[in-house]
Amino acid sequence: MRGIDMFNPATPVKTQSANTREFKGRCYLDGRTSDPSEQGWMCGSPPPVEKRVTFESDNFLEFPQLRWSLSHMRELLPTVNVWRGRGGGSHFESEDKAPEIDSLEFTDLDGCERRFDEALYETYTDGIIVMHRGRIVYERYFGALERHLPHACHSVTKSYAGTLAATLVQEGTLEETKTVGYYLPELRGTAFEDATFRQVMDMRSGVSFTVDYDDPYSGIWEFSRACGWRPRTKDLDGPRTISDYLRTMSCEGGHGEAFAYKIVDTEVMSWVMARVTGQSFAQILEERIWRPIGCEEDGYLFVDPAGMTVSGAGLSCTLRDLARFGELIRREGDWNGKQLIPATAVHDIRSGGYSKSDVSHPRELSYRSQWWVTNNEVDSFEARGLQGQRLHIAPKAEMVVARFASHPIGESSANEPITGPQILALARTLCG
Amino acid sequence: MRGIDMFNPATPVKTQSANTREFKGRCYLDGRTSDPSEQGWMCGSPPPVEKRVTFESDNFLEFPQLRWSLSHMRELLPTVNVWRGRGGGSHFESEDKAPEIDSLEFTDLDGCERRFDEALYETYTDGIIVMHRGRIVYERYFGALERHLPHACHSVTKSYAGTLAATLVQEGTLEETKTVGYYLPELRGTAFEDATFRQVMDMRSGVSFTVDYDDPYSGIWEFSRACGWRPRTKDLDGPRTISDYLRTMSCEGGHGEAFAYKIVDTEVMSWVMARVTGQSFAQILEERIWRPIGCEEDGYLFVDPAGMTVSGAGLSCTLRDLARFGELIRREGDWNGKQLIPATAVHDIRSGGYSKSDVSHPRELSYRSQWWVTNNEVDSFEARGLQGQRLHIAPKAEMVVARFASHPIGESSANEPITGPQILALARTLCG
Repeated sequence: MRGIDMFNPATPVKTQSANTREFKGRCYLDGRTSDPSEQGWMCGSPPPVEKRVTFESDNFLEFPQLRWSLSHMRELLPTVNVWRGRGGGSHFESEDKAPEIDSLEFTDLDGCERRFDEALYETYTDGIIVMHRGRIVYERYFGALERHLPHACHSVTKSYAGTLAATLVQEGTLEETKTVGYYLPELRGTAFEDATFRQVMDMRSGVSFTVDYDDPYSGIWEFSRACGWRPRTKDLDGPRTISDYLRTMSCEGGHGEAFAYKIVDTEVMSWVMARVTGQSFAQILEERIWRPIGCEEDGYLFVDPAGMTVSGAGLSCTLRDLARFGELIRREGDWNGKQLIPATAVHDIRSGGYSKSDVSHPRELSYRSQWWVTNNEVDSFEARGLQGQRLHIAPKAEMVVARFASHPIGESSANEPITGPQILALARTLCG
Repeated sequence: MRGIDMFNPATPVKTQSANTREFKGRCYLDGRTSDPSEQGWMCGSPPPVEKRVTFESDNFLEFPQLRWSLSHMRELLPTVNVWRGRGGGSHFESEDKAPEIDSLEFTDLDGCERRFDEALYETYTDGIIVMHRGRIVYERYFGALERHLPHACHSVTKSYAGTLAATLVQEGTLEETKTVGYYLPELRGTAFEDATFRQVMDMRSGVSFTVDYDDPYSGIWEFSRACGWRPRTKDLDGPRTISDYLRTMSCEGGHGEAFAYKIVDTEVMSWVMARVTGQSFAQILEERIWRPIGCEEDGYLFVDPAGMTVSGAGLSCTLRDLARFGELIRREGDWNGKQLIPATAVHDIRSGGYSKSDVSHPRELSYRSQWWVTNNEVDSFEARGLQGQRLHIAPKAEMVVARFASHPIGESSANEPITGPQILALARTLCG
């Protein structure tokens, strides 16, 4: 117990010190000091009021409380299970390369020289697994995370959903040129009606959606309240289910004109999948991925107040089960001789979505079927989520990195200057 | 889909017909017609409004919706996991006696002749396992329940908690003659202060607690709102955590004077356990029971808004894992050579709690350490929960019956006239 008593734990600390880091002009407790076991969140029966992380007080997504929350989401919100089946967890070969990897040095995007192990603290890592040629070569847990505990995937969830959507397209169950209105009568007459399935898969609908985490009236928070993730107040009300929220939206441009990253496209995509298959996202995920690859623990998904699963950010799973999914994708959908995902679906994802000269998407990245495609020297593509969640696949390095984190800043831009070069340095080392 | 369209599904049906049963002067859909798959609860993406079972609408504990809810509690409320560990489910020997058991005939307490299999529908059974000499001889699932799905245990949870309390007493970790106030400074100056640990274990505190399921202001609903199980309204507010609620209570009699079945005694008992061990009820349950007996699925517990586990009614688990616990108790705490629960703790439970001439408790039953003790011809003792949950141990018949149900009427008195004689007939058959 150190460092916290002088601070209001729900807000950034006021002054920079040896135990803080500055992001966007604000100071936050550093990776070691903000460790939940140091902070004592939710310790005691009941925990003292000032150590509680709760839905009602709406502090569970604040830093540093979220360092506890992201490993305990089901204790805060209703969830639906994604069953692992009866087979027991599939076996991982392992070959410990921790000493070599820990001491790996690299230069971050700001020109700072760093060591691999220290960089994990700098980026508020909760857990990391590195797989090389199908073997675990590195595995570490920090903070509130343990091997058997599911951690929030945030938008990494989207890449599970996008992979399943790409699978249904390749199988012919869904046609990517058909419109949302064709599949969902409920969205006829709404902004989504004429968007094609492919456009929502690639976040190219023209639907307007504001993302400002500091503005409680922005689209992201209105959506979150519709999901049941945020408490309502008299002033902050609005639609009470995802499907009701999606019907309220309007367009800011033509469909297909530009990439705009927005969770609502993912929810529409998954809604179409549910309608066509007659299964919820949880059921599709369980049947096509969780059970066949032998996940060792159940995963879970948030459900909205109508029981709809949230496929754009709702998954929690263990780090090892995330790594298993990464291996499945690295192996182009083949799992011990069973083609669970069509190889053509993985090839299509890796091809990237659109011209990299398109000014509407991030530099040197494209987005296809809910995956970020880098086109770097090891052909990496990634699933990314707020606070530093990441599933990185580097085919040419035969490497998968699964990583959970609880960074004070949501956007990937906060940890990317370190995490990006760190992972690339690792790929180069393993290749060499 | 039959039978429901003409009714308001949230209320009992108006007129008796071939598809209804009458209880307490009201008609309800019968066991077959109220099957959730027939009713279509929560089917569709999203389910149509009239088929939704939700927390917000407060219909999830109404009949017939609860036939779906009791197998899906985590989708409605926040929960904490009770991990099964990595060992995989422990093996059950089995010997199918279904034909013999299904056709078993018995006379219910109203003098009606019944068959075993038909009686399961009459009592709204969701699942039943019969074990004899450690082997599964009968196993059936109905309605929304499947082998791998956890079902609400309701007050059967209390018997898990009471067994652990009895264990801690036998081990000397807790002293049953010490008072609640001795262990919990927070309850000094409250109605619970001078009650002994043994008195709360046996529901003999003098604390006043009203249970009227039809009155939203009664103790049981105020407690439920404090747990976060029921929506709040402007008129229906009150304490917002279990521990806050317990501090508001008053006495109606002296401690130890009379038995009065009330969940608040269980919560105080578990709070003491948590304080003394430094572990939550979920952690104690996982460490001492769930993992050692090789449960095949994780269980889960409700948590209140402060993250406290609800030990009086909060557990959901699979039917097989409930049966495992029953076997552990039938074997007097021995699990394949490991004494997980002291045999003396089980002997003490079986001895019953107090004189059966005590007019304050039900006829021919006594209550000890949160178990109902029958003293019938096969020395049965039971864990019981609302809507027909039951774990029945008949030592002289070497029999365990684990049973989940979703009866329209909460109180055990509704299904007991059939279930009691049904289980006793089974015990006699297996003995013979």
